[in-house]
Amino acid sequence: MKEIQKIEYPGFSYQDGGVCAARGFRANGLYSGIKKNPTKKPDLCLVVSDVPCRAAGVFTQNKVQAAPVTVSKQHLAQTGGTAQAFLLNSKNANACNADGVEKSEEMCRLAAERLGILVQQVLIAQTGVIGQTMPIEPIVQNIDALCEGLSESGNEKAATAIMTTDTVKKEAAVSFELGGKICHVGGMGKGSGMICPNMATTLNVITTDCAITTEMLQKALRDVVKVTYNCLYIDGDQSTNDTCAVLANGLAENPEIVSEGVAFETFERALYIVMSNLTKMLAKDGEGATKLLECTVTGGKTWEDALAIAKSVIASDLLKCAMFGEDANWGRILCAIGYAPAEFTLEHVAVTLASSGGSVRVCENGAGVPFSEDAAKRVLEADEIQIQVTLADSKATATAWGCDLTYEYVKINGDYRT
Amino acid sequence: MKEIQKIEYPGFSYQDGGVCAARGFRANGLYSGIKKNPTKKPDLCLVVSDVPCRAAGVFTQNKVQAAPVTVSKQHLAQTGGTAQAFLLNSKNANACNADGVEKSEEMCRLAAERLGILVQQVLIAQTGVIGQTMPIEPIVQNIDALCEGLSESGNEKAATAIMTTDTVKKEAAVSFELGGKICHVGGMGKGSGMICPNMATTLNVITTDCAITTEMLQKALRDVVKVTYNCLYIDGDQSTNDTCAVLANGLAENPEIVSEGVAFETFERALYIVMSNLTKMLAKDGEGATKLLECTVTGGKTWEDALAIAKSVIASDLLKCAMFGEDANWGRILCAIGYAPAEFTLEHVAVTLASSGGSVRVCENGAGVPFSEDAAKRVLEADEIQIQVTLADSKATATAWGCDLTYEYVKINGDYRT
Repeated sequence: MKEIQKIEYPGFSYQDGGVCAARGFRANGLYSGIKKNPTKKPDLCLVVSDVPCRAAGVFTQNKVQAAPVTVSKQHLAQTGGTAQAFLLNSKNANACNADGVEKSEEMCRLAAERLGILVQQVLIAQTGVIGQTMPIEPIVQNIDALCEGLSESGNEKAATAIMTTDTVKKEAAVSFELGGKICHVGGMGKGSGMICPNMATTLNVITTDCAITTEMLQKALRDVVKVTYNCLYIDGDQSTNDTCAVLANGLAENPEIVSEGVAFETFERALYIVMSNLTKMLAKDGEGATKLLECTVTGGKTWEDALAIAKSVIASDLLKCAMFGEDANWGRILCAIGYAPAEFTLEHVAVTLASSGGSVRVCENGAGVPFSEDAAKRVLEADEIQIQVTLADSKATATAWGCDLTYEYVKINGDYRT
Repeated sequence: MKEIQKIEYPGFSYQDGGVCAARGFRANGLYSGIKKNPTKKPDLCLVVSDVPCRAAGVFTQNKVQAAPVTVSKQHLAQTGGTAQAFLLNSKNANACNADGVEKSEEMCRLAAERLGILVQQVLIAQTGVIGQTMPIEPIVQNIDALCEGLSESGNEKAATAIMTTDTVKKEAAVSFELGGKICHVGGMGKGSGMICPNMATTLNVITTDCAITTEMLQKALRDVVKVTYNCLYIDGDQSTNDTCAVLANGLAENPEIVSEGVAFETFERALYIVMSNLTKMLAKDGEGATKLLECTVTGGKTWEDALAIAKSVIASDLLKCAMFGEDANWGRILCAIGYAPAEFTLEHVAVTLASSGGSVRVCENGAGVPFSEDAAKRVLEADEIQIQVTLADSKATATAWGCDLTYEYVKINGDYRT
């Protein structure tokens, strides 16, 4: 069961359609043969807006940056934050290749030419094996078909095309009202392995028909990434290709959001709903994962302290294994809290394990308390586990997401290149 | 093959005897039933010097500290750095227990009483499950037998008693000359999981017959821990119980080492040989490990930069899985270098994989180079793999040790408590 339990938010309605939920966006995905594959899973996709968009992006902080990251950053800088198309592929990361930038730029040029827009209006993201020469022929041969097949229902094909070791596609979208107009935010993401929160993670495309300035769009993206993707931890490996970009085409015709205020907050909320749902989908479908883990820390001195503790718990390989084994080994939670780079008072720490199977308090005042192993087993049998850490230092709260560590993770990554 | 390949150092001879290699040290280990176990593997041990020793220790930096850490630190502070006995047990960490300190202190008292020394002269270290009440009865019932059985050949029993998920005991010892006198440094350690380098790691007991002041002993220990145990990474989980203590009884009758100089350097070298060998044994016997990984970074701007890069590579779950799968996925090495908190010039990075099976250059000038997959396979089939990272920033060098990530790690930690 890789479907996540969605939380309902008043004033926002979940929609189908992913990156095509917002007006004026079309998408397509197809198999181009970047790497020969008998299943012919799509490996190339394109998301296009009918009109130019305001665009914002966050990218990997890894010092080893893949060519598409370099090219997308350049294009955003050259246009001052606009774009009309987003080209993505799986099966090749185009990282650590001597001719990488040239190839990524050529891919953008092929798409721009066919769409009749400037090359700088095309963003690009790529994922797959690092350090293998990117073949350009599959793109040359398939760019016409890719563009011709663009449609308002192409979101599923696009979401499938960016999957690597993902076992399910990841899409989310909501509608909401702004100034009497119906607006939409939708998105797709790919995740699985090499995922660690640091300013951006994985490939993610967000589209919206909201009217908003580039400056406010960039601010909203930064704010929301901080509490969603950056709170996700699969394996601590930060990719060379992490990219999250949002395109806003303004076709909802709401009064343009030009500053902070109620409308901006509503837009941020919508972005948060889409991106937090995608984050949970990424966590639940982490490489080899059988369970979504969510650690919420309350009562922290600062948000940074609370988040550091939540991330430390979620990142513990030992705890991840214990959760896979459905073993309520709470000592490992306390241990991970202890080495978090955070301030807290140990004597105030309480820990509860919860899920659809119930709730069990395992630790109070920094020490273990008796609990029923049977009740704990019922909690841990579920496929979404909450680890609730209560401090009594102040009022800050933070949540981090991750998954269990399993045989399958080792198997997948023992021989990824072949 | 859990035996490591030992490096020879001129002027130093490897010895048998572990913690009993130095004059005047006796040890014993037995099964006391701290946790009922049909195999009756020893779980309690004692290392005693015939005369009082200078003593120094380094302990976990985890804010959640087990009771034995608290008690040993107190004893060292109370005596100003002397000790005569070291009591250790496995099967119970005595961490996160309300009555933990009381129990650890009582264990020291039982040993002190029987040995006729002050309780403050006894150090204690414990390892096992966190948060389970430490039973005192097994100690009460077995302390007489433990003390009566102390012998100059009891090192193996002691080294066995501290094993948890370790598959082999870990001992090392060397002899060398100081001021015309033959001196010895020996030690034992236990490792396996919950191992991350931060000021100390795992349980380790080092003994020496060198004459050295407490101050210089502490300095030597800190210096050597920094380049041995603190460069070890199994799973990033820093234990609540990490303890490394050294006892020096002076029975070699060398001129006492009271300051830096040639004699101090020789002593540090001996300590380094013992502790680096123990570190490699800990790495090779990491939980579920099939391979020892050693990453050496040369040409770094500073030692800190070189070490940060070496640790980042060794810590990558993705690389650890690839090494298990004997897959020369060098992109993961470059990726991990990229997110290391270090300064370096990507365009200068070269990477070579080496082992008893040969050597293969996989990356130059920050990009991949063609290599024979067959040759790489022969390199990676070995059970000790060197990952050589060459920078061209300056002259700093650092080494970090770790192991591969395997199905067995997941299995062991999926159900550790039962």
